[in-house]
Amino acid sequence: MRVLGVDPGLTRCGVGVVEGVAGRPLTMVGVGVVRTPADADLGHRLVAVEQGIEQWLDEHRPEYVAVERVFSQHNVRTVMGTAQASAVAILCASRRGIPVALHTPSEVKAAVTGSGRADKAQVGAMVTRLLRLAAPPKPADAADALALAICHIWRAPAQNRLQQAVALHASRAPRTPPVPKGRTT
Amino acid sequence: MRVLGVDPGLTRCGVGVVEGVAGRPLTMVGVGVVRTPADADLGHRLVAVEQGIEQWLDEHRPEYVAVERVFSQHNVRTVMGTAQASAVAILCASRRGIPVALHTPSEVKAAVTGSGRADKAQVGAMVTRLLRLAAPPKPADAADALALAICHIWRAPAQNRLQQAVALHASRAPRTPPVPKGRTT
Repeated sequence: MRVLGVDPGLTRCGVGVVEGVAGRPLTMVGVGVVRTPADADLGHRLVAVEQGIEQWLDEHRPEYVAVERVFSQHNVRTVMGTAQASAVAILCASRRGIPVALHTPSEVKAAVTGSGRADKAQVGAMVTRLLRLAAPPKPADAADALALAICHIWRAPAQNRLQQAVALHASRAPRTPPVPKGRTT
Repeated sequence: MRVLGVDPGLTRCGVGVVEGVAGRPLTMVGVGVVRTPADADLGHRLVAVEQGIEQWLDEHRPEYVAVERVFSQHNVRTVMGTAQASAVAILCASRRGIPVALHTPSEVKAAVTGSGRADKAQVGAMVTRLLRLAAPPKPADAADALALAICHIWRAPAQNRLQQAVALHASRAPRTPPVPKGRTT
């Protein structure tokens, strides 16, 4: 499976594409950062994020998009911009019918380092090792986007089994409303 | 001037179009609510908000879009959805080159009632009076969207004078970077 990971942000939006399946070595297909100027108005920044994400979707045709789940508790100053950039990424994928999964920062850290409280350096080091790169991707937002894609590939089998079980249950009990397609987690 | 006001939300996104200029009676052109099902996944809800806003822009061709400025301090539970819906509205307008203005809830309340701490009923009553409606628009999100549009029409003259002054200053001091077009306030 090919997954585009998105670490949302208005100033730097990390993007990384990883291909592979759980249990086999993974391959980095691409990594980068969509940047927008801090002195531009919000509307122009959101349009720039949209154009950047669209380019990545056009170029790499991912089957899934994994976006960091934003919490309102953290980083009160920047959380609004992060939420707005994540909305644009989720919108771009959903418009194309690409399933979107949201993973929390702790889920991502735990997936790649074994600890939900790992620091940036540890995440960067593990991404470098898991994708067999020569050096950690920079900036950290780019490494985080790759970590999100890896997390999604590794968590997907369990999630798919869960979705199949729910779908099976729904098909046996006709009065239960059907599970919406591409439901985010 | 014709202004589309947007009271952003995922479950109910209020939209209202008002036409007029400061100092003259205003006219309501349209009012409504873009709704998305609470049990749908976030991606599908954002796509539905985008489609709804696009329809309002197509049908009413506003010259300005006024969106409520979202604060991360309030309503921690719903603030992420509100921020994400507002991002979609701002994106839709900016993609078309329509200038977007953000107004805080207190600015809107102060504009239409004289008090930044007015309640929903007071805002609804003043919107009804100012637009010469038979009854207050329902739900409150629809009335709030009209109040945003009214607020923008009344604040616009002062903002235009300010922008002209800044532009004049920039043109006299060539080293100052130019003011981006359509800057949000």
